[in-house]
Amino acid sequence: MPRTTFEISTTRRCELVDVTSKVQDAVRAAGLKSGLVVVYCPHTTAAITINENADPDVRTDLLMALERAVPNEGFRHSEGNSDAHTKTSLVGPSVTAIVEDGQTQLGTWQSIFFCEFDGPRRRKVWVQTVGA
Amino acid sequence: MPRTTFEISTTRRCELVDVTSKVQDAVRAAGLKSGLVVVYCPHTTAAITINENADPDVRTDLLMALERAVPNEGFRHSEGNSDAHTKTSLVGPSVTAIVEDGQTQLGTWQSIFFCEFDGPRRRKVWVQTVGA
Amino acid sequence: MPRTTFEISTTRRCELVDVTSKVQDAVRAAGLKSGLVVVYCPHTTAAITINENADPDVRTDLLMALERAVPNEGFRHSEGNSDAHTKTSLVGPSVTAIVEDGQTQLGTWQSIFFCEFDGPRRRKVWVQTVGA
Repeated sequence: MPRTTFEISTTRRCELVDVTSKVQDAVRAAGLKSGLVVVYCPHTTAAITINENADPDVRTDLLMALERAVPNEGFRHSEGNSDAHTKTSLVGPSVTAIVEDGQTQLGTWQSIFFCEFDGPRRRKVWVQTVGA
Repeated sequence: MPRTTFEISTTRRCELVDVTSKVQDAVRAAGLKSGLVVVYCPHTTAAITINENADPDVRTDLLMALERAVPNEGFRHSEGNSDAHTKTSLVGPSVTAIVEDGQTQLGTWQSIFFCEFDGPRRRKVWVQTVGA
Repeated sequence: MPRTTFEISTTRRCELVDVTSKVQDAVRAAGLKSGLVVVYCPHTTAAITINENADPDVRTDLLMALERAVPNEGFRHSEGNSDAHTKTSLVGPSVTAIVEDGQTQLGTWQSIFFCEFDGPRRRKVWVQTVGA
């Protein structure tokens, strides 16, 4: 069993959901003062990223850019979601952030996002910490 | 010297090779019960990802989508493999997975893949563990 | 406060800056013998990658390939840098490398690069180590 699990519900096919405060809750619950936190997605059509949380247009543009780079056409996989599998490998299944003084260290404009590429679905996120 | 090294042979220019059981062997050999495992590719035209292992069409589609997003044309590098270098930075040189109870924790449909983008070649994979 | 911070100045809008020796300095300063080093970018229009450092054409080609995959057009975000935000999520906010014998373990042709996608700017890089 991974150290901490939380669940989220997505509401559209493609969507970025801010999970920063849930990650920080997990860091606090683990009692970690200094080390690393890994935020891991156990699904194959969803990913984790870190990006800007100020202007929601950034998230809209990011999803549009991914759709242009990976158009969902000409694929063989019968489930029709090969674009989602590809975006997952491009963005990546996890992020690793630094923890100091019991706090996840993020830049001024950074938040941690769950990236849904084949929703809406009920999804899980796993969080692991290492350090002291 | 990295903690554990294993080798694989790829047979095509682009190919996804399942290395999940070799990673689990390295976790067991390291005696790690709880922590993180990092699977690292020391090459610059190959990467590591986590994705679906049920329908092989997913891997075929993923490689095709990468080829469409990064067509190998108009480049300057004389070795003719700049597409492979680019795909490597997009997919990433490593994955980090959670270990609990001595087991690499993966979602139901997830496997760990070595991504060959300029084969066929003999390749190395490095595995490091941290935790208790 | 993250364990180690260093700063760099970028000189163009898009640029790959080799930070390998600065990362190794941070590993040495931390006194880490065996474990992991995480190189983390606290900005949302810049990323970290590992790739070839022998032929500078590889870096030129990589930046051109990213520009073709994510053309900066048709976006809504008023700052006009949604391409940079997207490239950041594709390449990723950090890399994790293995440390053994006090040395960052890299493949023969690998270096660690700061990826500027919206420069020129003054930028920070954070480095964290875990292990023994």
